[in-house]
Amino acid sequence: MSNARSGKTPEKIVADLVTANHILHGQNVVDGFGHVSARHPARPDRFFLSRSRAPALVEANDILVFSLDGEPLDPRHPPIYLERFIHAALYRARPDVHAIVHSHSRSVIPFGAAAGVQLTPISHMAGFLGEGVPRFEIREFAGHETDLLIRDNQLGDALARVTGDAPVVLMRGHGVTAVGRDLQQAVFRAVYTEWNAAIQAQTMLLGQPVYMTKEEASAAAAANDGQIARAWEYWAVQAEAARRALG
Amino acid sequence: MSNARSGKTPEKIVADLVTANHILHGQNVVDGFGHVSARHPARPDRFFLSRSRAPALVEANDILVFSLDGEPLDPRHPPIYLERFIHAALYRARPDVHAIVHSHSRSVIPFGAAAGVQLTPISHMAGFLGEGVPRFEIREFAGHETDLLIRDNQLGDALARVTGDAPVVLMRGHGVTAVGRDLQQAVFRAVYTEWNAAIQAQTMLLGQPVYMTKEEASAAAAANDGQIARAWEYWAVQAEAARRALG
Amino acid sequence: MSNARSGKTPEKIVADLVTANHILHGQNVVDGFGHVSARHPARPDRFFLSRSRAPALVEANDILVFSLDGEPLDPRHPPIYLERFIHAALYRARPDVHAIVHSHSRSVIPFGAAAGVQLTPISHMAGFLGEGVPRFEIREFAGHETDLLIRDNQLGDALARVTGDAPVVLMRGHGVTAVGRDLQQAVFRAVYTEWNAAIQAQTMLLGQPVYMTKEEASAAAAANDGQIARAWEYWAVQAEAARRALG
Amino acid sequence: MSNARSGKTPEKIVADLVTANHILHGQNVVDGFGHVSARHPARPDRFFLSRSRAPALVEANDILVFSLDGEPLDPRHPPIYLERFIHAALYRARPDVHAIVHSHSRSVIPFGAAAGVQLTPISHMAGFLGEGVPRFEIREFAGHETDLLIRDNQLGDALARVTGDAPVVLMRGHGVTAVGRDLQQAVFRAVYTEWNAAIQAQTMLLGQPVYMTKEEASAAAAANDGQIARAWEYWAVQAEAARRALG
Repeated sequence: MSNARSGKTPEKIVADLVTANHILHGQNVVDGFGHVSARHPARPDRFFLSRSRAPALVEANDILVFSLDGEPLDPRHPPIYLERFIHAALYRARPDVHAIVHSHSRSVIPFGAAAGVQLTPISHMAGFLGEGVPRFEIREFAGHETDLLIRDNQLGDALARVTGDAPVVLMRGHGVTAVGRDLQQAVFRAVYTEWNAAIQAQTMLLGQPVYMTKEEASAAAAANDGQIARAWEYWAVQAEAARRALG
Repeated sequence: MSNARSGKTPEKIVADLVTANHILHGQNVVDGFGHVSARHPARPDRFFLSRSRAPALVEANDILVFSLDGEPLDPRHPPIYLERFIHAALYRARPDVHAIVHSHSRSVIPFGAAAGVQLTPISHMAGFLGEGVPRFEIREFAGHETDLLIRDNQLGDALARVTGDAPVVLMRGHGVTAVGRDLQQAVFRAVYTEWNAAIQAQTMLLGQPVYMTKEEASAAAAANDGQIARAWEYWAVQAEAARRALG
Repeated sequence: MSNARSGKTPEKIVADLVTANHILHGQNVVDGFGHVSARHPARPDRFFLSRSRAPALVEANDILVFSLDGEPLDPRHPPIYLERFIHAALYRARPDVHAIVHSHSRSVIPFGAAAGVQLTPISHMAGFLGEGVPRFEIREFAGHETDLLIRDNQLGDALARVTGDAPVVLMRGHGVTAVGRDLQQAVFRAVYTEWNAAIQAQTMLLGQPVYMTKEEASAAAAANDGQIARAWEYWAVQAEAARRALG
Repeated sequence: MSNARSGKTPEKIVADLVTANHILHGQNVVDGFGHVSARHPARPDRFFLSRSRAPALVEANDILVFSLDGEPLDPRHPPIYLERFIHAALYRARPDVHAIVHSHSRSVIPFGAAAGVQLTPISHMAGFLGEGVPRFEIREFAGHETDLLIRDNQLGDALARVTGDAPVVLMRGHGVTAVGRDLQQAVFRAVYTEWNAAIQAQTMLLGQPVYMTKEEASAAAAANDGQIARAWEYWAVQAEAARRALG
């Protein structure tokens, strides 16, 4: 169910977005960098994203509203993320997408940076990867001298084209972006992309991996999509306890 | 000593089951998913299992009573785990079993998913693995299009047949299930199956592993079975401190 | 400086031994198993060792006094560690040794269990390993059917003979034992044996390791021996904070 | 912006230096060993460095002032780090350097100790490594019998010559030293050198790494240099919460 159809208020989406920031930190998907956004539930041409701040520290009053060109509505905005165009471009290209996580997920980066290796679902928790995991090579669009960042709408559009209908896109030398129908699904996908990457790498060292079939992956993804609330409740409780401990 | 013969009350078993949930989380055997059950001490045709909830958050009033067909006795039950049939089937097939842990243990999944590799006791703490570690390939029973879950009694029976008398069964692309004479033993086996998997994988990378002999494994398992209380006390203290910190 | 020459009272040694238990837990050298002992400062024919308890939970009133045959002086003792003979035998054979750590250190076990691989100093913090790291294969002394435990004085003597003058001995399929002139040195050696094992394994995967020369190892060990107090202060503060958090 | 040009007072630099010590511990760059210094903002011939103490425990009143020959100004100083000459020599040779981190960073040591392997930027967070990562082999300057420590100004000068204009220098069998225009940059480089080492090692195991081009690394380094404050705020909040928990 999309945010729009979920009937959630903007205030509830913002509260969930703060929680999502803390969860992604608690689950080691982000460190001081990385960011997560949500589409506005009533205005699909807008999205919520924090000002430039480490996810662990994001609070509700850090959240800004952006238009789909990647600019904040409020002209007196504080410093913002350089790569907000990842979010803007994917929201433009994908009406089905209502939340996006961009991260430098530790176990995933090697799958974006090792030639000839394909991130492939090997744990049923990551069945969604069976929909495809394209790899974005920025050199194909902007040459060999970029800083690897998605700094403008043109690069954002290139990333969105490579992503296509996929749930996750690898970014060579940089990180990974996961999309979802809502924050819960986008976060779930970000966490279990990291999980599958670590398990697949270990399996490749041990022997010949038995990957999931396309059909298994698809069926597992559907089954897991019905169970995300269980993980979200757990991650949220952990994340808020960790947040309190930060003082 | 089995639960039945232990003379423990149902209330004590439920309290231990809550602790087992928290321990498995604290020892990184489960995350938001995975579950642990205990057979009813007075009614071997019933077992205790939480409603659908992340193990770290399970409390005594989340515990439900199930019959051996995998259905809750109380028809007004909250949402339950899809894979309760793992527990039901193994309790049906194995009168010696009084507790079961099902998990997606990180270091174990590669041993279920790498062709031609066998999880084998290399640390004396995991001597119990010498009794055999069968691998359940769901494709052999339900084809190449399942979601890998044990969703019904038929699949549960297939898993139980593959498990046979073993203490642990690997589930390809999915996870692992450990059984025990009581909660303490089932949890111990789940923890040290993860442990052995990590150590075996590392040893395989270094050189030619010297595995335990069948006799060494059996003797070590017997010795360790007398020491489980030491680990349980420690894990329980840690787990309850972590539970308090969650608030 | 040995404990004897350190002028420490038995009470101070017991307090340090409690701290050593907590440090070894905090540094991931032990889990629910493993143990640490100290020779009595005034009576070299006696040593202190906890009753059978997980190191994280050991308190001063858990500490018992043992004679060098591995038996507690107090006949009304609580349950004790099966492997107290590791300690007894090494104190008998090594008058220079005043403290002993036995553990199932995770990164070290593979070096005891992989044929043809030698744990070798590659980080200057573990220069002490240059004195030699013998491997104890219990099969050479007791056949292929033991539980791998040092259950009596005869096996203890065999372990002590294999250890010789070394600071550390690997025990195949089981763990590792480190000795020291005092608790601080034995704990330091246990921690940095784990450290070196992890680093050596990673280096072996990357390329051809450049190990320390015998002379470098010896010089580094001497330098580090003068700096142990810095690590001990740090580990002790961490360990006691963790102990408080356990409640 | 250098410390000098930053207009920070000596008191502010000392406060930042205490925070840097705690951050490096929190980010697993240092353990009981390793140290971080800052040049005096008004007196470029002096620098601040803690007395000999584990970084996690360093407080403002542990900080001493050193001259560029590596000696404390106050003759009644407490015990000091043996390797203060790393700092002294690099401040002498590099007027651009205002902060230095020396550590035994776990994932980095293998890159200093594996022959024929080069630490190379593969994650854009570590673009600064593109400026070069020389390897210091102490044997070339002091033979095969040293304790690997930089114990005097002569060895310090050798290290500085090998370092040249690089941001980071590997020290075989020992560790790594990172320099920066200020504490924030030196700490950032230390953290992401560890990060890149772990990711590069994992990528090498998976397949053929696609490293950053020289131009990508340079551009990424420039981009990241503008974002360091975001990481510092986050690390500092975490580190101070951890410090409070130590009691």
